[in-house]
Amino acid sequence: MIRVGIVGASGYTGAELVRLLVNHPAVEITLATSRQYADKPLSQVFPHLAGRCGVVCQNLPVEEYAAMADLFFTAVPHQTAMALVPKLLAAGRKVVDLSADFRIHDAAVYEAWYQPHTAAELLATAVYGLPELHRAAIKAAKLVANPGCYPTSVILGLAPLLTAGLIDSETLVVDSKSGTSGAGRGAAVGTLYCEVTDGFRAYKVAEHRHTPEIEQELSKLAGKPVVISFTPHLVPMSRGILSTVYAKATKAVSQPELDTLYQEFYRNESFVRVLPPGALPATQYVRGSNYCDLAARFDQRTGRVIVLSAIDNLVKGAAGQAVQNMNLICGLPEGQGLDVVPFFP
Amino acid sequence: MIRVGIVGASGYTGAELVRLLVNHPAVEITLATSRQYADKPLSQVFPHLAGRCGVVCQNLPVEEYAAMADLFFTAVPHQTAMALVPKLLAAGRKVVDLSADFRIHDAAVYEAWYQPHTAAELLATAVYGLPELHRAAIKAAKLVANPGCYPTSVILGLAPLLTAGLIDSETLVVDSKSGTSGAGRGAAVGTLYCEVTDGFRAYKVAEHRHTPEIEQELSKLAGKPVVISFTPHLVPMSRGILSTVYAKATKAVSQPELDTLYQEFYRNESFVRVLPPGALPATQYVRGSNYCDLAARFDQRTGRVIVLSAIDNLVKGAAGQAVQNMNLICGLPEGQGLDVVPFFP
Amino acid sequence: MIRVGIVGASGYTGAELVRLLVNHPAVEITLATSRQYADKPLSQVFPHLAGRCGVVCQNLPVEEYAAMADLFFTAVPHQTAMALVPKLLAAGRKVVDLSADFRIHDAAVYEAWYQPHTAAELLATAVYGLPELHRAAIKAAKLVANPGCYPTSVILGLAPLLTAGLIDSETLVVDSKSGTSGAGRGAAVGTLYCEVTDGFRAYKVAEHRHTPEIEQELSKLAGKPVVISFTPHLVPMSRGILSTVYAKATKAVSQPELDTLYQEFYRNESFVRVLPPGALPATQYVRGSNYCDLAARFDQRTGRVIVLSAIDNLVKGAAGQAVQNMNLICGLPEGQGLDVVPFFP
Amino acid sequence: MIRVGIVGASGYTGAELVRLLVNHPAVEITLATSRQYADKPLSQVFPHLAGRCGVVCQNLPVEEYAAMADLFFTAVPHQTAMALVPKLLAAGRKVVDLSADFRIHDAAVYEAWYQPHTAAELLATAVYGLPELHRAAIKAAKLVANPGCYPTSVILGLAPLLTAGLIDSETLVVDSKSGTSGAGRGAAVGTLYCEVTDGFRAYKVAEHRHTPEIEQELSKLAGKPVVISFTPHLVPMSRGILSTVYAKATKAVSQPELDTLYQEFYRNESFVRVLPPGALPATQYVRGSNYCDLAARFDQRTGRVIVLSAIDNLVKGAAGQAVQNMNLICGLPEGQGLDVVPFFP
Repeated sequence: MIRVGIVGASGYTGAELVRLLVNHPAVEITLATSRQYADKPLSQVFPHLAGRCGVVCQNLPVEEYAAMADLFFTAVPHQTAMALVPKLLAAGRKVVDLSADFRIHDAAVYEAWYQPHTAAELLATAVYGLPELHRAAIKAAKLVANPGCYPTSVILGLAPLLTAGLIDSETLVVDSKSGTSGAGRGAAVGTLYCEVTDGFRAYKVAEHRHTPEIEQELSKLAGKPVVISFTPHLVPMSRGILSTVYAKATKAVSQPELDTLYQEFYRNESFVRVLPPGALPATQYVRGSNYCDLAARFDQRTGRVIVLSAIDNLVKGAAGQAVQNMNLICGLPEGQGLDVVPFFP
Repeated sequence: MIRVGIVGASGYTGAELVRLLVNHPAVEITLATSRQYADKPLSQVFPHLAGRCGVVCQNLPVEEYAAMADLFFTAVPHQTAMALVPKLLAAGRKVVDLSADFRIHDAAVYEAWYQPHTAAELLATAVYGLPELHRAAIKAAKLVANPGCYPTSVILGLAPLLTAGLIDSETLVVDSKSGTSGAGRGAAVGTLYCEVTDGFRAYKVAEHRHTPEIEQELSKLAGKPVVISFTPHLVPMSRGILSTVYAKATKAVSQPELDTLYQEFYRNESFVRVLPPGALPATQYVRGSNYCDLAARFDQRTGRVIVLSAIDNLVKGAAGQAVQNMNLICGLPEGQGLDVVPFFP
Repeated sequence: MIRVGIVGASGYTGAELVRLLVNHPAVEITLATSRQYADKPLSQVFPHLAGRCGVVCQNLPVEEYAAMADLFFTAVPHQTAMALVPKLLAAGRKVVDLSADFRIHDAAVYEAWYQPHTAAELLATAVYGLPELHRAAIKAAKLVANPGCYPTSVILGLAPLLTAGLIDSETLVVDSKSGTSGAGRGAAVGTLYCEVTDGFRAYKVAEHRHTPEIEQELSKLAGKPVVISFTPHLVPMSRGILSTVYAKATKAVSQPELDTLYQEFYRNESFVRVLPPGALPATQYVRGSNYCDLAARFDQRTGRVIVLSAIDNLVKGAAGQAVQNMNLICGLPEGQGLDVVPFFP
Repeated sequence: MIRVGIVGASGYTGAELVRLLVNHPAVEITLATSRQYADKPLSQVFPHLAGRCGVVCQNLPVEEYAAMADLFFTAVPHQTAMALVPKLLAAGRKVVDLSADFRIHDAAVYEAWYQPHTAAELLATAVYGLPELHRAAIKAAKLVANPGCYPTSVILGLAPLLTAGLIDSETLVVDSKSGTSGAGRGAAVGTLYCEVTDGFRAYKVAEHRHTPEIEQELSKLAGKPVVISFTPHLVPMSRGILSTVYAKATKAVSQPELDTLYQEFYRNESFVRVLPPGALPATQYVRGSNYCDLAARFDQRTGRVIVLSAIDNLVKGAAGQAVQNMNLICGLPEGQGLDVVPFFP
């Protein structure tokens, strides 16, 4: 049994890691940390876990818990992660970091969007944990930077088009919509039930921090620098991200060609479902699962390709992908513990 | 592998059966029937099942499909079930019937609340499928009448009190609240999103058909006829039932005594979680799982006991309990395929 | 024009008072206080009010603002109100207090459920502001204690029955359900969108502070002490309260008799809608309005009467009733400014 | 009093017209037609209207009801409207048509997106009823084509930019999101509560019929043909549309210049609220009102302008705008009956 520790277990991502890991046959949760809920059973913080997880939250310094697990999920805010991760690695542990701290390869770009980086020396070895694109590197990694939720949906959606050179990357517009769990479990007026329900809004227009992360990965795929317009929106739902992406096609393409391109690109991927012709993704069909559902349309009138990509932000956009990465770096079957069927209705 | 057939697969209960069964290690779905969606893959009717279930819906007479499975879940409306079930039994099949047709032992009572019964001869052998109360009988049964969703929550909530003789059954008031999936997947104005959201209402006040079913089981537990007031309500949510039950205590009882009574009664039950002192059930903590969460309070001011009982209406209130019953009548471990962790948030 | 001040304007009740008052032809809002949002325009705290209300929030001691209005709505927590209200009255102002501080006539009862009362001398002159029952006294009052949201729904629902002596008050069970706005606008994990949506729960079972308030008013109506079981629940919706009330009838009564009793009792009330035979209240049909919708059923099987009562907790349960009270104590037409049609869907 | 008739009163738009008109001081509803609910009081079809509207639904041929009102709102599906409207005009009535039948000036374009037009001769005299852009023409009209909900949000959002020539219309991407009431009140599986809640999806990608309507009006503003990519999405909420619009700026523009452009353009408009710098529209802040809330951002990184536009689809996107148009063609104050404050939370 692999011993795993969850650093920052009292957020929604922490709870989701527990949901997936307690049914994982090869791992055992040996640590859950939380400052706010120290000494409380995790099943008291999250009553849905009662009877399924006996772990008690601990508030320990990293030095004390580094020996308590073989692999750590660091589900803490950016800037907090960069203080912990180097110590865990130094102690010989493997780390799947769910913060933004090790996603951006270029420290200068990171610092332009976030704040100074105190562990920039690790950026060269951290692997961007999108298995569908970087599987081999992940398998060999000690530190995996688990992708952001929005980036996961966008990058998987665009990879076939950019790889094939089918779209003009200068025309990329990314309009994404997320459920409210993405805002975390902190007490805040803006995410109260009454503020969110029966309403819809954009936020951080042209300034969301997932922008450089998306651009970095799209640039790799395109083989040249890609700059995008990215607008996130808040949907009155708990979970799910749908990204709608627009770009001018570099040449006219038939709808069947587009369908084939996607089917071929993801032929061997068990967590990407390219939808049958005519169908469109919906977040309610991936809820609770590690799937990314995709469809692409060619609009002859405008010469644009429109890509629709749906994930569960807490699963493929966070905890599920983290488990997928853990499986890879631990030499386990990639899908182990992730066979959860989407939860509908 | 046990071959199972789902008769009436295109409702929410059918989909939920599939969600649970595709991860069940000992069974294989060999049939799904649907009149409305004949010849459509089930994964087209329910896109969340894509990649997880290759079954195609069929519209066949019972005579033709009776040989296609060893055990049938009949997830059809009452009155439809009584026409199918006798034929399946005659063909030597086992049946877990999710309709109301075989839940009421007394045909006269059934006919007073429903309509004439055409298979009343089976009522004597049908077993009321609440495993926590009737496990032995279920194991020996050919036909299990899977309990209604409201009755499951109420009967499990009251069993300890009635068995202990702690409440005056003439004072029983049952106030239940259900999510909208309980109304089914039929197109209807009353369950449109805009009609249900941001609203709350009672329905079928003092005339809901689950009343005699609840009374039958409570009467067995009390050892004498029990008559209740039962009011169901519609909650703007997809899943979940919370029942709030009131009764005069026959004697003063301390809260710790009450807690112990419940803990003891359900000590060996893996799907009933008696909450720790001070905690109260919430439907969001059982969502997607086969759990029934319970708490009881003694109110000294009024001399009443108040019981709170929460289930997921589609799981412990329907498909999950049906799988639990299947496991029992097929000699499988009772919880097999039912280790789904509640889905929160 | 009557000058009105809103003390505690940055909660949901404060915003609702503004929504109603800006269209009221006889009043003008001259003050809005808020500690948290001092010096911010109210339309920045509540962007929906942009263009409709130019008031800027002020953080002033009561001594400084007492002269700034003729009538004050004190929409502050209990205990805060008892410190302000005596000073406003001493300054010759009229007060509609939306806290609990002046609702309970008996200081000992208040102190048993809340905390010590520092202005108990005012309890004798404060009038319980339920216009349908205490209209004359309200008209003559200087201080109106605006009823709680749950009590409004329950008392209006039971008044005809208790007045007619038709129910046994010892058998009263009150099961109430409220939208989330009732929990206020304070940042708290428990009322985050993700914690509330797709879930349902009871809270403060047998210990909610509205219990003595309800009992006080029901006792007046019954002419003898009434003790009730009261359970509040949290519904995943913004607004609305539905109360389901059960009591044994003292004699058999026909459904038409019951309908007539209610129709007669509320014949002259413009804000109580007794529903036509067969119809049941739903909170979505009173949303945004000052209506209380009522229906009563006699259940012959159990001998119980079941009453259903629906209000919008922020309107008839708070701000709307406060405006109704203001109209009465200021000699204005009772319904002025309250002709808002319910908002559906 | 102007007598108004509502043809097709039993949909959500019909109900919303009634909500607004019963408080309108200059009109009286003299007719409501409905095939489905013939002879039913409208307050039975829509219980929230109880006590506010005594009209009974009638199922009459247009010939019989044409004399029953001075002005008609035709809230019927496209194709149905084109059969009724000519007869109402021939009878000397004024018409505000809420269908799509008279919005497209070019019959060929209409027929390419809809079906053959049987009253194309009226297209030349029908006025596109967006008062902020076509006020003078509306005042003189007999037939006003009330704009679609999506087009209202998009056209108001882009008018300042296109008029000023600030954006390259070939780069226009329109990503819109709508509440579920836009899908109407017909019984359908796709809009059931359980299908819509906690989910988000796009629909009719690159083929929604509002596309040519938007393009027509944008082309007028740009002074040349405009072709757009338009993607509508379904949000789990009842009401509201948010449109997010992207276009390349023709030159660099400062954010204050952009703010001023919008403030100036809509300086005299009482139903358009250009938000203060830094604020972003949210549908919950316009809910129930006739407002359109707007913000525009210039993104220096990409050279794009991003416009956010929020309306209530049933008010400014349908019934409210229809009343505004009625006021104009009847010589009433433009905002009469429309002073409803947004409904939040």
